[in-house]
Amino acid sequence: MIGIRAVASYLPQNRINNLDRQKVFEFEDEFLEKKIGFLSISRKNADEDTSDMCCAAFDQLVRNGGVDPDSVQVVAVCTQNPDYSIPHTAAIVHGKLGLTESCAAFDISLGCSGYTYGLAIIKNFMRGMGFTSGLLFTSDPYSKIIDETNRDTALLFGDAATVTHIGTDPIFALGRFTFGTRGKEYSALICRNGILNMNGRTIFDFSASTIPDDIKEALKLNNLKIDEIHYFLIHQGSKYIVDFIKKRLRLPDEKTPFKAQGYGNTVSSSIPLLLEDVLTDQSAKRVLITGFGVGLSWSTTVLFRQR
Amino acid sequence: MIGIRAVASYLPQNRINNLDRQKVFEFEDEFLEKKIGFLSISRKNADEDTSDMCCAAFDQLVRNGGVDPDSVQVVAVCTQNPDYSIPHTAAIVHGKLGLTESCAAFDISLGCSGYTYGLAIIKNFMRGMGFTSGLLFTSDPYSKIIDETNRDTALLFGDAATVTHIGTDPIFALGRFTFGTRGKEYSALICRNGILNMNGRTIFDFSASTIPDDIKEALKLNNLKIDEIHYFLIHQGSKYIVDFIKKRLRLPDEKTPFKAQGYGNTVSSSIPLLLEDVLTDQSAKRVLITGFGVGLSWSTTVLFRQR
Repeated sequence: MIGIRAVASYLPQNRINNLDRQKVFEFEDEFLEKKIGFLSISRKNADEDTSDMCCAAFDQLVRNGGVDPDSVQVVAVCTQNPDYSIPHTAAIVHGKLGLTESCAAFDISLGCSGYTYGLAIIKNFMRGMGFTSGLLFTSDPYSKIIDETNRDTALLFGDAATVTHIGTDPIFALGRFTFGTRGKEYSALICRNGILNMNGRTIFDFSASTIPDDIKEALKLNNLKIDEIHYFLIHQGSKYIVDFIKKRLRLPDEKTPFKAQGYGNTVSSSIPLLLEDVLTDQSAKRVLITGFGVGLSWSTTVLFRQR
Repeated sequence: MIGIRAVASYLPQNRINNLDRQKVFEFEDEFLEKKIGFLSISRKNADEDTSDMCCAAFDQLVRNGGVDPDSVQVVAVCTQNPDYSIPHTAAIVHGKLGLTESCAAFDISLGCSGYTYGLAIIKNFMRGMGFTSGLLFTSDPYSKIIDETNRDTALLFGDAATVTHIGTDPIFALGRFTFGTRGKEYSALICRNGILNMNGRTIFDFSASTIPDDIKEALKLNNLKIDEIHYFLIHQGSKYIVDFIKKRLRLPDEKTPFKAQGYGNTVSSSIPLLLEDVLTDQSAKRVLITGFGVGLSWSTTVLFRQR
């Protein structure tokens, strides 16, 4: 069986303190603390690119004793802010990590639903190919495309990267998945001419109206009830959307973490950043993960502890 | 069993005649006819974007009686020249085609190896999810990033899109795959600041030294000999590279088509453009396809006729 063996991450040390921007953007304390929820957001260095952030996450994985680079048979990078549009960032990471020539490498272009999708894509690719060791990276530094004067986006997005080692004898097996797409509303979160534009109201309404039902559907698919889940790892789009979904489904506070106060919405990295902590928590037998955003796109699954 | 049910394509009607550019670029007739092999290259209209080209290929698929849009459970677009960096082009195509909300959608970022990889990715994704109907698009209009004064690239790349319907009761089943990556040489074909740059010598040397052996390896993996293959569909990077691989492996002329004289190197669309013709040729029982380029990256497999 193939599943999640390890997760490691890289959070750049630089922070922008959102409280310092209160006068510029004219918001109340409550807006920052209860709505957005991000008191500060993480920022990569100017000379650090998407692939460098992947490599920093990989270094952490190696320090954790997670993986032998020579064993890696496939590397996938989920990003919509690659180093270059051509080639794919996975090839650059492949080169920087000195992986073997027989290692497959490709990028997946998805936003906030990218981690859940990425798990489904790489796991089934590996199963089909008979592979036993693969790496799924998420690295989507939105600081590359943020207009720092745009209140709709400048307070929200943080930079981070993660790597998930997929292989045999996993800690978490993957359950059944839901997927969804509302392509007609694709322009609600879009990068035009190098600048991100977001219609926050549309994105919130979409998430609030779609994700609670999708979580219910994923539970049904996996023959589980809400109280059989030990953690609900909800994409950290904002504190308000996590709180909304939590209330709507009456999820317990202690099972539904919001941990992005100090670094922001890190897009496809938000779920693995939460999962990193949950991996070592032996009480977490069944963990639901749900990602939603850019596309508009969503995907949910349940992880089942094996050891 | 899941495999290839249908292939359709869209080749824009506009052409640039490379013979007309002989004076500007100062080349001999032989260079065009025997080395590059592209007498003209296809160009999309300025108001046509990557997703529009996908939709035009899909229209052809529907005209061929290929697919019911409501049945489609996943759509993947292989491109490195998307409509926007955010969102993924698959979501835009999803919206334009009016596919269902439960349809999964994602982009794969790969270049000339993208079709072979894409088949492996979508087939195994579908198998894992229990899906029976999916669409793999290739649409990578390099005209968006070509400097028309750069002789290394301006004579080579043509615009095209294709769609492959993946499903049950296929015409071609997929055999075993090889994959390879030489990430350390990623800068040999790169898009910096919106302009494509290519080191043609490095790309040729890589292809000439890697692909013949990779074809042999793919044959071995599939327990086949060269004379058991009815067509070798080699990525149409240039006439010279196709001829080189053909000679090196002593492949028969009639089994090794070069058909891109009139439209150029269409990147991930080059193999499905050839495959479209081969689908209806009942003598084609076993077809080898091999893609290589951007990354540097390569992948080879064999298609086995089922009906």
